[in-house]
Amino acid sequence: MADSGQDERTVVDFRTEPTKYRHWKLTLDGRVATLAMDVQEDGGLRPGYELKLNSYDLGVDIELYDAIQRLRFEHPEVGAVVVTSAKDRVFCAGANIRMLSGSSHAWKVNFCKFTNETRNALEEATAESKQAYLCLVNGPCAGGGYELALATDWIVMADDGNTAVSLPEVPLLAVLPGTGGLTRLVDKRRVRRDRADFFCTTEEGVKGRRAVEWGLVDEVVPRSRLAEAALARAREMAARSDRPADARGITLTPLARAIDGDRIAYAHVTCAIDRGRGLAEITVAGPAAAPPPDAAGVHALGAGFWPLALARELDDLILHLRTNEETIGVWVLRTAGSAEAVEAYDRLLADAAHDWLVREIRLYLKRTLKRLDVTSRSLVALIEPGSCFTGTLLELALAADRSYMLDGTLPGDDRPAPAVRLTAMNFGPYPMVNGLTRLASRFLADPGRVDDLKGRMGEDLDAAAAAEAGLVTFTPDDIDWEDEVRIALEERAAFSPDALTGMEASLRFAGPETMESKIFARLSAWQNWVFQRPNAVGPKGALQVYGTGQRSDFDRRRV
Amino acid sequence: MADSGQDERTVVDFRTEPTKYRHWKLTLDGRVATLAMDVQEDGGLRPGYELKLNSYDLGVDIELYDAIQRLRFEHPEVGAVVVTSAKDRVFCAGANIRMLSGSSHAWKVNFCKFTNETRNALEEATAESKQAYLCLVNGPCAGGGYELALATDWIVMADDGNTAVSLPEVPLLAVLPGTGGLTRLVDKRRVRRDRADFFCTTEEGVKGRRAVEWGLVDEVVPRSRLAEAALARAREMAARSDRPADARGITLTPLARAIDGDRIAYAHVTCAIDRGRGLAEITVAGPAAAPPPDAAGVHALGAGFWPLALARELDDLILHLRTNEETIGVWVLRTAGSAEAVEAYDRLLADAAHDWLVREIRLYLKRTLKRLDVTSRSLVALIEPGSCFTGTLLELALAADRSYMLDGTLPGDDRPAPAVRLTAMNFGPYPMVNGLTRLASRFLADPGRVDDLKGRMGEDLDAAAAAEAGLVTFTPDDIDWEDEVRIALEERAAFSPDALTGMEASLRFAGPETMESKIFARLSAWQNWVFQRPNAVGPKGALQVYGTGQRSDFDRRRV
Repeated sequence: MADSGQDERTVVDFRTEPTKYRHWKLTLDGRVATLAMDVQEDGGLRPGYELKLNSYDLGVDIELYDAIQRLRFEHPEVGAVVVTSAKDRVFCAGANIRMLSGSSHAWKVNFCKFTNETRNALEEATAESKQAYLCLVNGPCAGGGYELALATDWIVMADDGNTAVSLPEVPLLAVLPGTGGLTRLVDKRRVRRDRADFFCTTEEGVKGRRAVEWGLVDEVVPRSRLAEAALARAREMAARSDRPADARGITLTPLARAIDGDRIAYAHVTCAIDRGRGLAEITVAGPAAAPPPDAAGVHALGAGFWPLALARELDDLILHLRTNEETIGVWVLRTAGSAEAVEAYDRLLADAAHDWLVREIRLYLKRTLKRLDVTSRSLVALIEPGSCFTGTLLELALAADRSYMLDGTLPGDDRPAPAVRLTAMNFGPYPMVNGLTRLASRFLADPGRVDDLKGRMGEDLDAAAAAEAGLVTFTPDDIDWEDEVRIALEERAAFSPDALTGMEASLRFAGPETMESKIFARLSAWQNWVFQRPNAVGPKGALQVYGTGQRSDFDRRRV
Repeated sequence: MADSGQDERTVVDFRTEPTKYRHWKLTLDGRVATLAMDVQEDGGLRPGYELKLNSYDLGVDIELYDAIQRLRFEHPEVGAVVVTSAKDRVFCAGANIRMLSGSSHAWKVNFCKFTNETRNALEEATAESKQAYLCLVNGPCAGGGYELALATDWIVMADDGNTAVSLPEVPLLAVLPGTGGLTRLVDKRRVRRDRADFFCTTEEGVKGRRAVEWGLVDEVVPRSRLAEAALARAREMAARSDRPADARGITLTPLARAIDGDRIAYAHVTCAIDRGRGLAEITVAGPAAAPPPDAAGVHALGAGFWPLALARELDDLILHLRTNEETIGVWVLRTAGSAEAVEAYDRLLADAAHDWLVREIRLYLKRTLKRLDVTSRSLVALIEPGSCFTGTLLELALAADRSYMLDGTLPGDDRPAPAVRLTAMNFGPYPMVNGLTRLASRFLADPGRVDDLKGRMGEDLDAAAAAEAGLVTFTPDDIDWEDEVRIALEERAAFSPDALTGMEASLRFAGPETMESKIFARLSAWQNWVFQRPNAVGPKGALQVYGTGQRSDFDRRRV
């Protein structure tokens, strides 16, 4: 179990753009785009493995994530996206095994989380952005390759002797198809559980008619008609899209980020890392100017429109901290700015929701907040004078495991006492992975409260009112504030990181379950467990000995 | 990480009875029973730890399980059960920490599963047997102690300086409240997530008014009026019960079991362990005689009534194999007997469901089948000539990960080709932990199939018909049967036990989630993961150093 891992010290940068892609080819043809996987063998993110057979690592997935993002924002005309392989003889062999076996536990888990989020994003693009993904399986499609296919809404497979779908993780590697595979098989495609059982234990997978009959793919087509069949299907799907064929996209301009020692600064988001205390102190600034009057103004501002810039910056920061700052276990969330200004932007986001770009921005904010929810870091919101926890930004406090709001002012600080403010954006557009808004999740015991709070939108709620409304956890006054917050953060940083991860994952998502919440809870938890078991990652574990010619040697005790 | 564990070679026997209890006192007073925890310090199941402060180990829980069972069957008059402590100064300190720290990973996981099932059984007794559990917290109630309280439907707590509820696992031991605690907190009691977060990280817990306000308990009462208040509440709950005050219970007579080398035999269930192949071959015999004509006949037969005897035997065998035969990873399920006879019993179970005893028997069968579902062993059903996979027994095949049904007969065997048969018992009384019947879980893709199958109750379905109906996985003929089954079992036994556990847990429970399925999936998976993490179980892990005066030394990387 390589818990030191390969060289993981390289800082991973999640920012990329099509001209820099090494592993994907994006082509556009009117309403249909094609995203072809063409992994460069020697293009691994870290040394120590070759990306053979269109296998992938985090670097490949970062490009995929970028492509999905850009298709949404830069290509409103695209109504369907065909995911396929640009290789002759293989679709995708899944996550690279050498990369996995050489990675630390944390790296494996973090890698799986990001790939999961990317596959979810692809599903959301289909369902909510009306940019429908389908998959053209033009060669063997194994493990993570099939999991990618499963995230699309239609799978067309070549009907030849060579092409099959498979999830060989259990028989081959003693790990799980942990990027949604098991869950999507029985919960999305509703494959009968006994057939799923056979399929997941059969290295060579299933092909041809049986794959269709069992629901593993949607159609099989002779190789000669494959491209044509997929294109026809893509055109049908695109025709059902409400995306405007004649609109112009915006450009996701390069994201400016300055890292200076332990400070990370974007235009609206800053982060100061306190290594001694194990904290990341994150501050989100409200908008500097009033919003444009309407959707046309949003288009004109493009990537400079504050909510979009905010989503991009926060998204990048979350990914950066997760991957590059593993030992920083507590994230402190602050905001700074004017409640009125945030509220004005929220009003525009609500009123112009019919516009395709505004829709995308709302969806991006939703995804970013969800990414925060599933982040295995303790989140503590501090609501202080000068803050603007309003509407969209109030979601940060509602996403936190706990919040502290100063009751009154601090000596020597002449800013008014902090207040929080609800907007329409707190009541629907940003559901969590469990399908509920953060408010609904919070008030499961008393759903009527959510309705009551609707009547208080726009009101400034001071500490007493916010506590009474159940929106904040604790409201110390100026005498207790400093000590109470300091002790809470110190204690939090001192607990076992693992126990906190398990605890937070259990407490954050009460109520209903969705496929997504199942993937992040049940499947990821089991996968993480398996990733710790000697049968997979021990010196004789299947993941470690794969390809060495050695046989794995299992402890046969069932747990 | 004591992966060899303390002496776990002692065979654990789950059979007990009140005269043998060492840790619980059961008292009966008309409609109200009291189950008082009075753990004997030196009464641990294995050497190496003392059960101080009403802490518990598997032995304590085996008695609790037995008491819950007997209250259902032997005491129809009891409508409410008060769970409390017989100790002066403590309610319960939770699972014994020395026991946990000295146990192997498998033991810890298995122990948690059984305690989870027992707490679920207690909740089901409240909801379905109308024997309502409430909890009288008369002293500090920590960890597993509070998790026990959480499983009851009403918690009355002493309002004194000493009594608090707490879940100190995270801060104290770096593990989770894994016996349903986290899930019940936010999903059953719907405690606000930020309060739950604070509560679960606060060693000393919460007491008095705040405990009520936060929903952690239902009422607090001064010590002087505590017993009286609990009794009043119990009487109210009993008054709402439909259990017959004047009926006579049946006696759960000692369960006869013979273990002879690798053969385990009960009256209707036998098991042959094939250590070389890693298999347990389980055969369930159908009834030897026709059922009695009505409920009165069931009462007269008592524990001898075939369905009840079957439930008890299967239940005991599952527990025995899980705990004492860890390396036997594949369970082969067979039946032997007459389909007509099983169907006749099922008809009685369906027709006499209004009778309290018949209701209990149906519920017990349900629980036993659920225990099978959540067992981390591969289940393979073999449907052969002479079998009686009918109704209740067909559930065994539907619970299996995979089934093989012989198409036709075998040379030299003059019994007719096997058939399977549906009864009313397949369509409701035995839901899985996800709340669906096994048929509904199976046909999520096409729910209409379940309705179609209702029209085929009582019909003998041969291999072709059963496959067509989707009830069996594979139907080899006599030429392929032996090889196909042999290879399937060999392959299964060769895979990584851990990967299979994670895979089966993911594939078996598609569809909706319930609190129970969340506990067995999300919470247990996270707990199992934490139970593998050096921060908990490494030489410097919190669980290991607890009480030694050493400080735990955490790897601060968040995963």
